[in-house]
Amino acid sequence: MSIEKDIPAIFLSQLSPRAIETIGKVQQFVDTNCVPADPIFHSQLSTNPELRWKLTPEIMDKLKLKAQEEGLWNLFLNKRYAEGPGYTNLEYGLMAFYMGRCFTAPEATNCNAPDTGNMELLARFGTPYQKKQWLQPLLDGKIRSAFLMTEKGVSSSNALNISTTAIRNSKGNFVLNGVKWFALGAGDPRCSVWLVMCKTSEDAAVRYRNHSVLVLDAKKAIASGKAKVIRPLTVYGYDDAPHGHCEIEFNDYVIDDEEMEHCILAAESRGFELIQSRLGPGRIHHCMRLIGAAEYAMLKVVQRANTREIFGKLLKDRENFMMEFAQHKINIERCKLLVLNAAHKIDISSTKDSQREISIAKIETPRTVLNVIDWCLQMYGAEGVSQDTPLSYMWAANRTLRIADGPDEAHLFQLARREAKQFAEVDEYFQRYDQNYQRLLKL
Amino acid sequence: MSIEKDIPAIFLSQLSPRAIETIGKVQQFVDTNCVPADPIFHSQLSTNPELRWKLTPEIMDKLKLKAQEEGLWNLFLNKRYAEGPGYTNLEYGLMAFYMGRCFTAPEATNCNAPDTGNMELLARFGTPYQKKQWLQPLLDGKIRSAFLMTEKGVSSSNALNISTTAIRNSKGNFVLNGVKWFALGAGDPRCSVWLVMCKTSEDAAVRYRNHSVLVLDAKKAIASGKAKVIRPLTVYGYDDAPHGHCEIEFNDYVIDDEEMEHCILAAESRGFELIQSRLGPGRIHHCMRLIGAAEYAMLKVVQRANTREIFGKLLKDRENFMMEFAQHKINIERCKLLVLNAAHKIDISSTKDSQREISIAKIETPRTVLNVIDWCLQMYGAEGVSQDTPLSYMWAANRTLRIADGPDEAHLFQLARREAKQFAEVDEYFQRYDQNYQRLLKL
Amino acid sequence: MSIEKDIPAIFLSQLSPRAIETIGKVQQFVDTNCVPADPIFHSQLSTNPELRWKLTPEIMDKLKLKAQEEGLWNLFLNKRYAEGPGYTNLEYGLMAFYMGRCFTAPEATNCNAPDTGNMELLARFGTPYQKKQWLQPLLDGKIRSAFLMTEKGVSSSNALNISTTAIRNSKGNFVLNGVKWFALGAGDPRCSVWLVMCKTSEDAAVRYRNHSVLVLDAKKAIASGKAKVIRPLTVYGYDDAPHGHCEIEFNDYVIDDEEMEHCILAAESRGFELIQSRLGPGRIHHCMRLIGAAEYAMLKVVQRANTREIFGKLLKDRENFMMEFAQHKINIERCKLLVLNAAHKIDISSTKDSQREISIAKIETPRTVLNVIDWCLQMYGAEGVSQDTPLSYMWAANRTLRIADGPDEAHLFQLARREAKQFAEVDEYFQRYDQNYQRLLKL
Amino acid sequence: MSIEKDIPAIFLSQLSPRAIETIGKVQQFVDTNCVPADPIFHSQLSTNPELRWKLTPEIMDKLKLKAQEEGLWNLFLNKRYAEGPGYTNLEYGLMAFYMGRCFTAPEATNCNAPDTGNMELLARFGTPYQKKQWLQPLLDGKIRSAFLMTEKGVSSSNALNISTTAIRNSKGNFVLNGVKWFALGAGDPRCSVWLVMCKTSEDAAVRYRNHSVLVLDAKKAIASGKAKVIRPLTVYGYDDAPHGHCEIEFNDYVIDDEEMEHCILAAESRGFELIQSRLGPGRIHHCMRLIGAAEYAMLKVVQRANTREIFGKLLKDRENFMMEFAQHKINIERCKLLVLNAAHKIDISSTKDSQREISIAKIETPRTVLNVIDWCLQMYGAEGVSQDTPLSYMWAANRTLRIADGPDEAHLFQLARREAKQFAEVDEYFQRYDQNYQRLLKL
Repeated sequence: MSIEKDIPAIFLSQLSPRAIETIGKVQQFVDTNCVPADPIFHSQLSTNPELRWKLTPEIMDKLKLKAQEEGLWNLFLNKRYAEGPGYTNLEYGLMAFYMGRCFTAPEATNCNAPDTGNMELLARFGTPYQKKQWLQPLLDGKIRSAFLMTEKGVSSSNALNISTTAIRNSKGNFVLNGVKWFALGAGDPRCSVWLVMCKTSEDAAVRYRNHSVLVLDAKKAIASGKAKVIRPLTVYGYDDAPHGHCEIEFNDYVIDDEEMEHCILAAESRGFELIQSRLGPGRIHHCMRLIGAAEYAMLKVVQRANTREIFGKLLKDRENFMMEFAQHKINIERCKLLVLNAAHKIDISSTKDSQREISIAKIETPRTVLNVIDWCLQMYGAEGVSQDTPLSYMWAANRTLRIADGPDEAHLFQLARREAKQFAEVDEYFQRYDQNYQRLLKL
Repeated sequence: MSIEKDIPAIFLSQLSPRAIETIGKVQQFVDTNCVPADPIFHSQLSTNPELRWKLTPEIMDKLKLKAQEEGLWNLFLNKRYAEGPGYTNLEYGLMAFYMGRCFTAPEATNCNAPDTGNMELLARFGTPYQKKQWLQPLLDGKIRSAFLMTEKGVSSSNALNISTTAIRNSKGNFVLNGVKWFALGAGDPRCSVWLVMCKTSEDAAVRYRNHSVLVLDAKKAIASGKAKVIRPLTVYGYDDAPHGHCEIEFNDYVIDDEEMEHCILAAESRGFELIQSRLGPGRIHHCMRLIGAAEYAMLKVVQRANTREIFGKLLKDRENFMMEFAQHKINIERCKLLVLNAAHKIDISSTKDSQREISIAKIETPRTVLNVIDWCLQMYGAEGVSQDTPLSYMWAANRTLRIADGPDEAHLFQLARREAKQFAEVDEYFQRYDQNYQRLLKL
Repeated sequence: MSIEKDIPAIFLSQLSPRAIETIGKVQQFVDTNCVPADPIFHSQLSTNPELRWKLTPEIMDKLKLKAQEEGLWNLFLNKRYAEGPGYTNLEYGLMAFYMGRCFTAPEATNCNAPDTGNMELLARFGTPYQKKQWLQPLLDGKIRSAFLMTEKGVSSSNALNISTTAIRNSKGNFVLNGVKWFALGAGDPRCSVWLVMCKTSEDAAVRYRNHSVLVLDAKKAIASGKAKVIRPLTVYGYDDAPHGHCEIEFNDYVIDDEEMEHCILAAESRGFELIQSRLGPGRIHHCMRLIGAAEYAMLKVVQRANTREIFGKLLKDRENFMMEFAQHKINIERCKLLVLNAAHKIDISSTKDSQREISIAKIETPRTVLNVIDWCLQMYGAEGVSQDTPLSYMWAANRTLRIADGPDEAHLFQLARREAKQFAEVDEYFQRYDQNYQRLLKL
Repeated sequence: MSIEKDIPAIFLSQLSPRAIETIGKVQQFVDTNCVPADPIFHSQLSTNPELRWKLTPEIMDKLKLKAQEEGLWNLFLNKRYAEGPGYTNLEYGLMAFYMGRCFTAPEATNCNAPDTGNMELLARFGTPYQKKQWLQPLLDGKIRSAFLMTEKGVSSSNALNISTTAIRNSKGNFVLNGVKWFALGAGDPRCSVWLVMCKTSEDAAVRYRNHSVLVLDAKKAIASGKAKVIRPLTVYGYDDAPHGHCEIEFNDYVIDDEEMEHCILAAESRGFELIQSRLGPGRIHHCMRLIGAAEYAMLKVVQRANTREIFGKLLKDRENFMMEFAQHKINIERCKLLVLNAAHKIDISSTKDSQREISIAKIETPRTVLNVIDWCLQMYGAEGVSQDTPLSYMWAANRTLRIADGPDEAHLFQLARREAKQFAEVDEYFQRYDQNYQRLLKL
């Protein structure tokens, strides 16, 4: 299957030949090596609760090697960063689209969250020390990282609520207190660095200046006994070992002198700015992966429809099935246009100027894709909810994206407020209408 | 309001400077002259059932004059036709988008159905006589035309069902029999030419070759007493005078010798081909007008929200209203992308190669827009259903577009069949998957 | 078709034998005499704009005579009123259900809004004079009435907004000023009495005591020139002649001495109480008629499906059609249960204690029924929007019921507030949960 | 909270005083002992993959004891069975409604699937031996059972597809071959008896007479090595230990002479009849538990709304939240009426005569309840998908009910076919209409 079929012509025309080639290679790599590796990955996970978080499936290392050989590595790093291949958001978005077909592809190509966002932050704002210590091994796929943002008990979609504190003690060292959770990847035995959003002051003149992002040595923190990975959280019944979604408690954890020298990202009080720069394109990539997931679910449902007989007819010969199938294809298509449109807008303007397009893509895509997956699962009957198809896991994994990076409601509310700013103009429009009506009456 | 705000950047970049200028002029013309002319048009219609179909509101003639002065005339005629300004479907689509804001704009700019489609057919397939006799006055806005296609009692979305006959009598003259209905524009006193889809043979080798399109002098036909405009049909109570949706009966109407010379369009038995060429871009233009209508309904609802107090709060300050408003904006946006994408696809390939995109746009747009209009109407309460807002009329007029040019169900079914053709490929995909899985297991 | 099929067994068991007999007779009368009379009624309306509001179709008088002969007259008047047959709300609701199948049935049986509500008010609160002068001729079907409530320019669903004033002049006579609209039935040549909700004071201690309902001689008011039926409003394109939805302006209309003696209903300042007593059961009857309409639309769609061929198959043999058909049947069924449940609750308790059930029925029924009708219309294609089926008119007429008697949003909001009152209890529930959890831990 | 609030008055009036008392006790028992026991149950499950299926949480035994003490035991056994308390379906349905609030309640009261259905079959059709050997210990809650019906690879919603065979060998003993899956409860260490639907002949005159239900000693079967519990299947990551959804393979398993004497339920070839008798009321009880689950999810969301602040406002003070809350309450209410109506219909007629009502309840309830749960989960943000609320587990568990006991699509299709049988009558209705129309025209 060629990539032309998957990309609306108007967007195809915006891609560089180099990108077209890479997108094709990603498609090939994902279909050939990653999609069929997914069940192998899961079978290689230990069911022993101890070992489950200590060993990582060896198939992944093989995939990573292969991806590096093929030059399909760190594709996410855009032209802003010297370290990366410099694809546009549109171009990388289409690579993410193919990676979305399965679980293993993003990590295999070193394009998995939250490492991607963390690498971008370090590449853009890191000191030479931070780059050497953390960015390089991340770029090499040697270590992994976590972003400690969301907190238990408060609405973290409003980052002003973040209450984990890093208060300087009498010696000037930060002392951390608070509970973070849903720290993706923090359960991984290779997770070596935490980026922690925390409150470093209480009384900044502008309330958006009280927070900072700290870059901490995760293993040292845990070894101290003052920072503790309490437990992995589950998503529906999945623990997502070995990466995990973890709850982490800081209990008077003091950053030592040596680490103090290197632990602030960019500068104190720039936390908000940093997390915002992280979010725009990331949401687009999530959405593109979601659309890839939806299309893979549709491939699976065709596989079912081609062979499953329901009351004397193959599923594919049932009118009702086919009508619903077609409607879901439409729904996917319309999300694809929304997301590609947002990606392109970011490319030609900026994340800030593309907020409207990003919000729309972020609101529409997860729920549409979830409906697609849920329908495909239903078409699989009991098998659909089981481990014998990827559908139930896909549902669970993607369900979180109606919540993460701002829940649907927050984005819709923000969009509503943006729209409301233009309401006064409409009154002017109708004042002109009234004048013109009077003028026309006299014609 | 500038047009940039209304056009996604990716499509904006495809427009010629000439088109951008014209689109801006159309927006200006519509907002300044047509939107406020709508209530004047309706107030100038006679309520006397006799005169209602004989007089046409004079405001329309003034608008037409003004449009001609501004060069906003026959904008629909694309580059295929020497007679027209040669805009692409994308470019004209954006003009249609603005025209969709009101009732008077399409006719004011000589871009109203069914004349547009009829002019295209005559321009492309007409003989010099047909062009001189019918096309030129249509292009000049002097006469109007009707397309007699749909028939009572059969599913006309399958054109094979068309059963009005034009059988040659012993002298070789066509004799017409049958009942057509929903002939848009046939009630207009200026309607002078009918294009009639009819069956000219029963036994063509290919069943798609039994039909032809005849170009008939409408006034002569009516004068004969053998072709009769039976009645105007209503659409939710609206008769759409003076244009009307008419039922027309042919009862042994014999085409006389003189007319026989000029009455066949293109050639006998090419009926299917002609009607198909008529449909693709037309559907896009309908959809763009629908989107324009939806956005105008949203302007109206803002006007309401700015001033209407509901239980102690302005409507615009109600969270629920604003959330729904934002969602409807999203819904419009996603239709806009679907339609513009289809328009662009036609421009760079062909109508035939764009069937999938056209079908998707045609399925999604009318129902989405109807939901928008219905919601805006609901926000207006009792006023919404009345003649004091354009909303109820907009609803009725646009409701027909879930039926006309192929009902939703027919398009969805066709799309489903197109998709089903690719189902075999999916089996191959999973055969490769199985092979790759075995290979990976052994790595 | 027997009525048993139409009534869930649990509700059937609540009906008196007398009611069962009458319900059966209503069904028979409606199917035999009213449903087929609908097109005759409409054909007997004058299209001459003058006569349209002066003549009433003679078929109606014949139907009324027949209904009286069969004892199917004033069925709505419940046991509270000596004048009526004394059916419960559940019982009359099922009669209304059958009447909902067509346009003519309610008036034919003297059970049409707004006369029903007006008769109830007069029966319950009228003075002997008011009863003799207005109630008796209404009960006899000799005159008609209107209820002047809704006002232009304000949200009338909050009756506190009603601003038409009846201020006493120096002689103590009321002087009326204000504009009412959507006064149903006020266009009828037989309309003789207006019940007018208006503000008779500004400064009542309780703001719900500023309004009163006046009972006015409509013909005298119009003759004065100070009260004017400005125009009929349309609903979509329908004017609903000869009854009409009218705009009525009071311009210093002074109630003369004679009328002053009899013009107050119940007592001054009791307006709110009166309109509230009018609303509960009326909403149930509206909903039951709506359900009757939906079921009739479904009969119509079956008639279509039995004969219409779509791409080589009868519609009834299309799986997709049948699945949608079945789903709409479910949707109707669930509304029926909601409405019957509310009717029964009123019967065994009171309107006040049944607010929750009434609100739910009122929110769910109109929109569900509209979806049914819209789908049936779509299945009829172009014919569906035209005057050749009752569907487009049914849509328009029933669409108003998402607005009248409180728009959906107002009912939902009210229901939400009612629910919120119980939120504190939920906290207590979880406090007990916590205690029990601790206890169980120690077991 | 009293039960009156939870039960529509019309159904309340159908309950015996004894049932009302028991329903109240169930509510009390569930809220006090079971809801808070749920997290304890889950915490007592071993995470060791070996022990997970061998140990059962001890809290359950304590709950069972308590339930027995309170007489809340085997409540499901209706009056058909001497062994049980003899509640109607409506009455037990309301008990199931309260049990649906949590995971532990059904088992605690010995009312959990699949034991309930199995006990009913044994009570109704079992031989004295089968009753003594299996029914009595099941009624005592000493052992558990499984029903082996669904098979891998075929659409089991059409039981004709069941292909596990029990063929008599030369000695007349059954030899079983085939793979069953999704056998609920088969993983439980106490599971001692399997009821197995299998094919005992190929060539019955009627194809519904080829199947039988065998009652097999599960532990003996496993010990033979010829019947194997292959693996537990997961449902969205949950394994539902210790009960499990198991895959079981029969590989030439020969029933020995001793067991042959007692292994047929009712009689050979009556398999279809047996499974059908099992399904009707069971579906109602599932639905009632679902509604109980939905209402519990709504309690949880209120707990959240009472305390969670979103951008400066408590969630409960957000209009949008409250409107959605109210709508979900409506949706639950309408399902409740549908299910109670079906339960009552079964009570006063039969399962067979209530197929329509049962199908409607089965189609509507699971998807409505899933929407409720999904919305509540969304309101909980990240916490909602985690193990810290019961919501994600509730979603997964209830999601299976759109598939089990016949998927939505099968029920809707069956309902459609039932409706289609009445289509001919509608033609007769419109023939009478035509006659009446002609008659009325001449009046």
